[in-house]
Amino acid sequence: MTGIETKDLIWVGVVALGHSLQLGQAATEVANLRRKHKISPPTTDGPPDFIRALRAQQNCVEFAIPFQVVLWTAGVFANQVPAAILGTIYLYARRNYIKGYIEAADKRIKPFWQSIRALQGLVIVGVAGIVNTGLREYAGIDLVARLRQMAS
Amino acid sequence: MTGIETKDLIWVGVVALGHSLQLGQAATEVANLRRKHKISPPTTDGPPDFIRALRAQQNCVEFAIPFQVVLWTAGVFANQVPAAILGTIYLYARRNYIKGYIEAADKRIKPFWQSIRALQGLVIVGVAGIVNTGLREYAGIDLVARLRQMAS
Amino acid sequence: MTGIETKDLIWVGVVALGHSLQLGQAATEVANLRRKHKISPPTTDGPPDFIRALRAQQNCVEFAIPFQVVLWTAGVFANQVPAAILGTIYLYARRNYIKGYIEAADKRIKPFWQSIRALQGLVIVGVAGIVNTGLREYAGIDLVARLRQMAS
Repeated sequence: MTGIETKDLIWVGVVALGHSLQLGQAATEVANLRRKHKISPPTTDGPPDFIRALRAQQNCVEFAIPFQVVLWTAGVFANQVPAAILGTIYLYARRNYIKGYIEAADKRIKPFWQSIRALQGLVIVGVAGIVNTGLREYAGIDLVARLRQMAS
Repeated sequence: MTGIETKDLIWVGVVALGHSLQLGQAATEVANLRRKHKISPPTTDGPPDFIRALRAQQNCVEFAIPFQVVLWTAGVFANQVPAAILGTIYLYARRNYIKGYIEAADKRIKPFWQSIRALQGLVIVGVAGIVNTGLREYAGIDLVARLRQMAS
Repeated sequence: MTGIETKDLIWVGVVALGHSLQLGQAATEVANLRRKHKISPPTTDGPPDFIRALRAQQNCVEFAIPFQVVLWTAGVFANQVPAAILGTIYLYARRNYIKGYIEAADKRIKPFWQSIRALQGLVIVGVAGIVNTGLREYAGIDLVARLRQMAS
């Protein structure tokens, strides 16, 4: 049985919703700086902190699709627990990234690479899940069941 | 049983495809104004209506990931009917947003907040669905079944 | 039975992960040109090849959500094989788009339209899948089963 059940995606759903709220938060940071500096849309030029907020938001948007894809792929094909843990680390790193970038350009670097490592972890979990699903489907081999048997 | 079935996602799928076409439409609006004003890519500067069209598209892209996430989360964990209705309201508001923003910057404001309210509605439906799934899985409580019982 | 099973989404998952890596690759191209030309974030202005790389990445991000939506919709509601084939064509066209655009603005045009045609193909497969699921659910008609019967 490989049917997808909602109970196996609860924690991935929680992290995915949290990520949506974080993207809304990044948009709000930009809107607040627009108000502070009286910069009306569609203008995208302004003082350095506004430019940095815009770029922080833009970078979060650029990585939002890869994040959601690897989060759900890891959750659906492998297991929601490692997916949700790595997803939470990503959200935490991105929160520091947005906050840090608005303060100073250099403060974006460390949390950026943390978020990339969380993404890489999710890719590994997702690939492992897909490979296991593929082996079970096309070669009749269930690696996870074998590992469990070996461990017991 | 919490298995996910395609029949329970038909209307969410329809709205999701409609959203994809709308993003294509926003890109086409920008392309049309590029042609009208003879602005070849990669240039992103130009007359005010072109700048406004670019920003309208950009804003729709920024909110596209949160929208798809909350749409599918609401549809998968709760029910496709409220998800598709709120999703349709979002698409309608975003259509007015794009059209309005290209005409004048102020005309973006009202439909923007309509689209945000539709998003908030989807978040509420999604959270309710996840909470219900979690209670059923971890506490053996099925709120939806109880409410139905009380209503009958 | 219309339950969604992971085994029916293996190839869509592979293409979706490949797309995520491609978006990461587009970000890396921009980062490499930043290093080459010594352009530190948040600056977005620079020599033509850097501007073209930025726009190539931006365009890939703009089309990333429609792509993921139609890829999974086609895979879930219709069949993963056509979805994954069209998805692979999209990834191939986008690879040429990024490479071509960085070299010269004109070299983006042909692969761009190839990627659009792959998207249109995915929309057609997705719509066919949703219509078939809808007819089966609401009218008791299974078109795919009928076609198979007619063919045998």
